[in-house]
Amino acid sequence: MLITPGKLLANINSPADLKKLDQAELVELCSELRQFIIDNVSVYGGHFGASLGVVELTVALHFVFNTPEDQLVWDVGHQAYGHKILTGRRDNFFTNRVYNGISGFPKRKESEYDTFGVGHSSTSVSAALGMAMASKYLGLNQKQHVAVIGDGALTGGMAFEGLNHAGVSDTNIIIILNDNCMSIDPNVGALKDYLTDITTSKTYNKLKDDVWNLLGKLSHFGKSAQEIVSKVENGIKATLLSQSNLFESLNLRYFGPVDGHDVDHLVAVLNDLKNIKGPKILHCVTVKGKGYGPAEKGNATTWHAPGTFDKITGEIYKKTYALPQAPKYQDVFGHTLVELAKANDKIMGITPAMPSGSSLNIMMKEMPNRAFDVGIAEQHAVTFSAGLATQGLIPFCNIYSSFMQRAYDQVVHDVCIQNLPVNFCLDRAGFAGADGPTHHGAYDIAYFRCLPNMIVSAPMNEEELRNLMYTAQLPRKERAFSIRYPRGQGVMPQWKTSFQEIEIGKGRKVKDGEEVAILSLGHIGNYAVEVCEKLDAKGISVAHYDMRFAKPLDTVLLHQIATKFKKIITLEDGCIQGGFGSAILEFFADNHYQLEVKRLGIPDAIIEHGDQLELHKEVGIDPEGILKTVLEMVEPVIVR
Amino acid sequence: MLITPGKLLANINSPADLKKLDQAELVELCSELRQFIIDNVSVYGGHFGASLGVVELTVALHFVFNTPEDQLVWDVGHQAYGHKILTGRRDNFFTNRVYNGISGFPKRKESEYDTFGVGHSSTSVSAALGMAMASKYLGLNQKQHVAVIGDGALTGGMAFEGLNHAGVSDTNIIIILNDNCMSIDPNVGALKDYLTDITTSKTYNKLKDDVWNLLGKLSHFGKSAQEIVSKVENGIKATLLSQSNLFESLNLRYFGPVDGHDVDHLVAVLNDLKNIKGPKILHCVTVKGKGYGPAEKGNATTWHAPGTFDKITGEIYKKTYALPQAPKYQDVFGHTLVELAKANDKIMGITPAMPSGSSLNIMMKEMPNRAFDVGIAEQHAVTFSAGLATQGLIPFCNIYSSFMQRAYDQVVHDVCIQNLPVNFCLDRAGFAGADGPTHHGAYDIAYFRCLPNMIVSAPMNEEELRNLMYTAQLPRKERAFSIRYPRGQGVMPQWKTSFQEIEIGKGRKVKDGEEVAILSLGHIGNYAVEVCEKLDAKGISVAHYDMRFAKPLDTVLLHQIATKFKKIITLEDGCIQGGFGSAILEFFADNHYQLEVKRLGIPDAIIEHGDQLELHKEVGIDPEGILKTVLEMVEPVIVR
Repeated sequence: MLITPGKLLANINSPADLKKLDQAELVELCSELRQFIIDNVSVYGGHFGASLGVVELTVALHFVFNTPEDQLVWDVGHQAYGHKILTGRRDNFFTNRVYNGISGFPKRKESEYDTFGVGHSSTSVSAALGMAMASKYLGLNQKQHVAVIGDGALTGGMAFEGLNHAGVSDTNIIIILNDNCMSIDPNVGALKDYLTDITTSKTYNKLKDDVWNLLGKLSHFGKSAQEIVSKVENGIKATLLSQSNLFESLNLRYFGPVDGHDVDHLVAVLNDLKNIKGPKILHCVTVKGKGYGPAEKGNATTWHAPGTFDKITGEIYKKTYALPQAPKYQDVFGHTLVELAKANDKIMGITPAMPSGSSLNIMMKEMPNRAFDVGIAEQHAVTFSAGLATQGLIPFCNIYSSFMQRAYDQVVHDVCIQNLPVNFCLDRAGFAGADGPTHHGAYDIAYFRCLPNMIVSAPMNEEELRNLMYTAQLPRKERAFSIRYPRGQGVMPQWKTSFQEIEIGKGRKVKDGEEVAILSLGHIGNYAVEVCEKLDAKGISVAHYDMRFAKPLDTVLLHQIATKFKKIITLEDGCIQGGFGSAILEFFADNHYQLEVKRLGIPDAIIEHGDQLELHKEVGIDPEGILKTVLEMVEPVIVR
Repeated sequence: MLITPGKLLANINSPADLKKLDQAELVELCSELRQFIIDNVSVYGGHFGASLGVVELTVALHFVFNTPEDQLVWDVGHQAYGHKILTGRRDNFFTNRVYNGISGFPKRKESEYDTFGVGHSSTSVSAALGMAMASKYLGLNQKQHVAVIGDGALTGGMAFEGLNHAGVSDTNIIIILNDNCMSIDPNVGALKDYLTDITTSKTYNKLKDDVWNLLGKLSHFGKSAQEIVSKVENGIKATLLSQSNLFESLNLRYFGPVDGHDVDHLVAVLNDLKNIKGPKILHCVTVKGKGYGPAEKGNATTWHAPGTFDKITGEIYKKTYALPQAPKYQDVFGHTLVELAKANDKIMGITPAMPSGSSLNIMMKEMPNRAFDVGIAEQHAVTFSAGLATQGLIPFCNIYSSFMQRAYDQVVHDVCIQNLPVNFCLDRAGFAGADGPTHHGAYDIAYFRCLPNMIVSAPMNEEELRNLMYTAQLPRKERAFSIRYPRGQGVMPQWKTSFQEIEIGKGRKVKDGEEVAILSLGHIGNYAVEVCEKLDAKGISVAHYDMRFAKPLDTVLLHQIATKFKKIITLEDGCIQGGFGSAILEFFADNHYQLEVKRLGIPDAIIEHGDQLELHKEVGIDPEGILKTVLEMVEPVIVR
């Protein structure tokens, strides 16, 4: 079903078409754009609240700026649906987040209007500043560079690093703060409170408005007027004492706050800002889900990415099932942590801004003094956890695999080198699915396995996740313990099994066999079970081992395997360079086994978005691919 | 030579002894402590300016706080010599930074007073906050938690993440900002300017002093007095408009600036702060190198870690040599980049706060508009470089291997996923030497090799470094190009060779041989040359290949090697889990070669500090160790 756009939107195939509109038509266009997003997302799913919140800003930006020549960088990119629809992707927007369809995030390969690929937070200031610095060097003095960043993303330290450099850069960079007190979950931290304060402080706003009006009036009159503006500003600053505002402390000229839903005012403001040289920040106050009642009034986290819904009633569709379903690993984590924490008062939970995504919100609700959302701040989350561990507490720090990349140094420097017993739960390990390559958890086995004092584990099912978590909270003086698991459902509808310790570094034999041994790590081992059954039916006898640990390896079991089998397949949902399969190769080499080993995993390429199964199929680690590999392997191989 | 401490210092074996002194004696103690540091460092070398700058602060902290019960976290730790000397390490301080001696940084294993190991910057707020949150949870309401952080370290985004959380934490955390406008090199960025402004703004200080005096007088009078203090503060804040200061914007009560060299005042201030609940920041202004004339007056970067020097004249000793010496790789990088940049106007240089360490300062001086020190901000450095690359420029982003860990996500997300042609020069790859495990560049081959669109290379000598850099700046539409090299000297006194392109992924045969092939990556290959010569003399014929690239591998050469040899040794100055040797194992496995492979590299352990050669010896990758491995290998091996 192709969604029909409104009549203005139907004619906008690029920002050039948008610029042909009368400014008076922009309100109507915003309404059509908003409706088009509602119509699409309600039917096809995707991110929702964020894009609705920046409809006016998106229209104003493309109306005022000369995109794609002017560089527009969206931070994170959840909010860029309007941008995509206005820049030539209206008619295939229904393929959003679908395999081979367009990406849910801005992406350079997809469009020249997507100046910088995003997905992770807080990168936009640095990227836009790099572009602005390049333009300055290249003498492109009229070129504009705009970063749109949410208040949540601003808590990421990287954004602060960018602001600190931007403030002394003398470049044409405009940072637009899209302030809605939200990222995916409600924003936390002192910065949020500050932004609320400046937004609601009447004295401050009054003064700011006065400055603003003056600026608005004067900035059209060229250089001498700008000098006057500068003097007025300085005068006011002196009155307030210098640097009365956090952003001005960083030498960014601060404008706003302005109503992010008043498109006319936004157009006026942006036109003014274009004429003011140097780094500056515009504070826009917006409402996530703006213009769609249920999203505006309802829970903003729910409406961040609601799935499909009835756009009239606002009812979010839920699948119903005749039989009990296996739970999501996320929920197993969330409930199990609370269960463990009730019995062990040393356990603490930490998430960097993903309480609902990780299900740590269950513990945050039940034990608010023991579970922390620290904001979009993975680095801090890890070192904060290390600090807790030094005091004898047992932190479970839950970070998505791809986001853990951002805290890599903290894991090395603050946890592993100090040999502190911190527990890491790596959610979204393996393919993240529709979110695509920025969110795939492809590298964690490789990047954790090379670190001393690090245990690397992955459960094959819910019971193993519970038992690994149980094991991780038993008294332990040293070593970090990481447990990786994928997004989505496990395999055990009856998952509330009793706890059993798993000896660290012990795998298990799932199934005996003769010709080939499959060594799997984690949930993807369930495919191997399926394959082994099919092969049994064909009379091909394959053994299967759920190794559970990529580090330390189960050397006893591996010696048994290496002694019995000449042909080995390793299976993981992670990169094959340096991953679990390479650990197995290292063991065989170190112990003088000369075997035929085929490693299955994520190949050395950027894999795009799609269902997990589609992506597994693409890289040959779906059941069919595994089966094919086994069949090829049982054919005779020339050993050179 | 054991340095003789002054007579007060001679009796201080722990902070308990310090607390027995009259406060009036502290000035004298500071003088003795300062002299002891000067005496030691002038003879034994080490970090210098930073510790001199915090002598008074160190004495005041241990005098006022109940360490080690109260938790004191030094950021980075260059400045902690005084702390070490006062906490039981005076008499073995001469072993500082020496193999098997004490560490140049605070280290948990070394002392209970070292609450958190450091080395990398900007971790202290997060660590101290974790401790403070643990104390809050455990009901230890009197326990204090102090983070001492420099103004340079404060530019690291991680510090900001910590401050954002601290501001809403309601914990006993005191952040002491040690503001000397310096990290190793002069601090850069908007924050520095801001700190200078507030330090020099008289109006602001006058007002602050008034508040301060009031607080000082009132804070001794218990709860009701504190309420009065709070009202006074609020009144003043209202006058100034709310949040008149960057730190107060983040809900941290801001005190200061105070003179960091007035030990009496510091004692008074710290005593007051102990009685004020909640997160707070004390702004101390200090002088790096304070109290030693040549360091105070001279170049602060030079005096950061001057090596040994004549303490009377201030003359820094330089080694002199009869013969021309091989240059440092750092200098080859610095000069070569300028040479290339003169011929290619697209080249830009980027360093996160290591201009002198990396030698990018050469380009910064010659081409200030094309070389950037972005502050302690590795994340920003990488994404800023990616931004430059999107505009067609050719960034050379120079980051120490261990610091690159902090920008790992930016390399994955902003460079590799987008397939942007950014060049990374990884300095200090392999063992960093005296700086120890926090600075060893052990993991970069493993953590970069697993990333798609990443070239991983390492030169064996100066000429190869120059040619790799030359190759990296040739027009290239995609792929990141990393070049890793160690700290210190190369092997070619005549290093200014003419440029030659190296085909990406091509290794070279250094020497023919028969029995075993050594495949080396990078500078450590020079040991293999030495070993091969010795073995030749013994009549053992060993081939040697300088592979140059861990990714992509030279598959043509590897097929030749695998066809000719049954015994292979891989040699790298990086972790053996997942490193270059594993890449070779993967190639052999993927191509059905069954060979005997021994991987030499950094083992799966935290290796402490020492000379590079001492550490190579410890892990068996010095010439002797390599020789031993070859000899073991030429003995018959049981192939299972």
